[in-house]
Amino acid sequence: MGALARLITMLENRASESSVILERIYPATGHAHVIGITGPPGAGKSTLVNRLIAKYRALGKSVAILAIDPSSPFSGGAVLGDRVRMTDHYKDSGVYIRSISTRGSHGGLSRATREIVKLLDAYGNDVIIIETVGVGQTELSIMDLADTTVVVTVPEGGDSVQVMKAGLNEIADVFVVNKADREGSDRMKAELEHNVHLRPAGGWRPPVVMTQAVADQGIDAVIAAIGKHREWLRQSRDGAREAERRTHEFIEVLTSELEERAERALKAGTVPDILARVKAGELNPYSAARRLIEDRDSIRELLQNGGPK
Amino acid sequence: MGALARLITMLENRASESSVILERIYPATGHAHVIGITGPPGAGKSTLVNRLIAKYRALGKSVAILAIDPSSPFSGGAVLGDRVRMTDHYKDSGVYIRSISTRGSHGGLSRATREIVKLLDAYGNDVIIIETVGVGQTELSIMDLADTTVVVTVPEGGDSVQVMKAGLNEIADVFVVNKADREGSDRMKAELEHNVHLRPAGGWRPPVVMTQAVADQGIDAVIAAIGKHREWLRQSRDGAREAERRTHEFIEVLTSELEERAERALKAGTVPDILARVKAGELNPYSAARRLIEDRDSIRELLQNGGPK
Repeated sequence: MGALARLITMLENRASESSVILERIYPATGHAHVIGITGPPGAGKSTLVNRLIAKYRALGKSVAILAIDPSSPFSGGAVLGDRVRMTDHYKDSGVYIRSISTRGSHGGLSRATREIVKLLDAYGNDVIIIETVGVGQTELSIMDLADTTVVVTVPEGGDSVQVMKAGLNEIADVFVVNKADREGSDRMKAELEHNVHLRPAGGWRPPVVMTQAVADQGIDAVIAAIGKHREWLRQSRDGAREAERRTHEFIEVLTSELEERAERALKAGTVPDILARVKAGELNPYSAARRLIEDRDSIRELLQNGGPK
Repeated sequence: MGALARLITMLENRASESSVILERIYPATGHAHVIGITGPPGAGKSTLVNRLIAKYRALGKSVAILAIDPSSPFSGGAVLGDRVRMTDHYKDSGVYIRSISTRGSHGGLSRATREIVKLLDAYGNDVIIIETVGVGQTELSIMDLADTTVVVTVPEGGDSVQVMKAGLNEIADVFVVNKADREGSDRMKAELEHNVHLRPAGGWRPPVVMTQAVADQGIDAVIAAIGKHREWLRQSRDGAREAERRTHEFIEVLTSELEERAERALKAGTVPDILARVKAGELNPYSAARRLIEDRDSIRELLQNGGPK
């Protein structure tokens, strides 16, 4: 797995070769089922992920786990501690576990995650699990990458969970009420199911699964719910939506590539004349950007200088 | 204020004229002091903002307030309800209040906020207050725009506040312990002061101010702390850091401009040939992006088509 780890590190660090790597491996992608796991801190996501890994392994599937550690001060949650518990699976060659973290830019994390998922897919993983601590736009945009999003809640979540539920409803494909032995779990389930029935008819309606991940209970039902959603995705696939998805992905790839090339070229000190004038405060950033973009050779030089070697 | 409101709406909607507007008003900027107010939901930020407005008005300063309503489902907090309380100031022509919200992209919100702040600055506002509900990377990047960041906490915040404190420490220039009549406020103040003293010597050390915003107590001390920080900024300004800041701003402006132009052009259906091949699944997004970027005329056409009319 040495080569894979090195490639992931390159993508995580947004190396200039990233787009070349992706271009090469792209044809080998499209096989994996990508499962997003999110929910408030303390809901038991990592324990659930651990159980899911074991079940998928027992079914003969290879599994990769991407744990997103947002370095945002607001994220909370003992992510590192949770990771340690996953060591159960470290010696199984059918399980690949990797934590990735933000390096400043949130856009960078989303892009890196998207590309690392493609890479894990191209490497032949059957199941790819993305786990995030569910707070913030960055984590939401990462859940966008999942084929099936599992939202994990707990009965006693109180206020904050109430607040979050409304939004989590929109992104959930499967709800898990974990720690279901605790008081309030039936009410929680009923509430979630009520909300699910407000979704438009004809579309997917997320099942609500009760689990006690610590006691290994209810995990088969989660696996079944994920499988059912995958089957539904397969059957409801249509050409127009696929074309839409591809266009969206292309815009994302193109604009991030433009952005990253420009940033690299600027950091490397290319475009010295305009930059020197900006630094000295002689030229405002908007005038400088317009001049650079509108001059055919400047923009070309900039984008090429920021590209792969 | 009709013209200002219309310009803000254009920036908020990322109209293609945005960069032209900014280029024109840029020379008139640099006068305002930008104050960021953040902290967990329920800390009393809006009440505090209300009090600060009244004080600054009494000092003869014009004030603009930008309330960031992240449409993120995770944000929580009764932002709209809080807004209503600000109606105290709606009839004062020296106070301009505006809520702005995300429209999908988090990068878009950061950029719009940055530019709206510039606009409010160019319009002659002495003080610009940016208020966010303090969760997530988007809000963090918005606090980056402030000259002085005020972090508002409450004694009884419990766990979540404990978790958040570590990160809030890093961005705070002034701490406010609001609802200081409640139990635990002295301990909270002591903890915050302890953390402040872990900062490197010689730099700015955030004062911790106790307030009861509802009772209008401690507000003068907040104003004084903000003023002291402003003075510190003025005295510690140096040429190298200014050049660094300008370069950083230029990269942000340039890359967002590239991104937005490309996105607009693509949405308008330019580059039909490559896009058609991507839609049909004949060309993967990475190959398509590389071809587009490496072809001199394609990239030029794309960027011009996405530019202002």
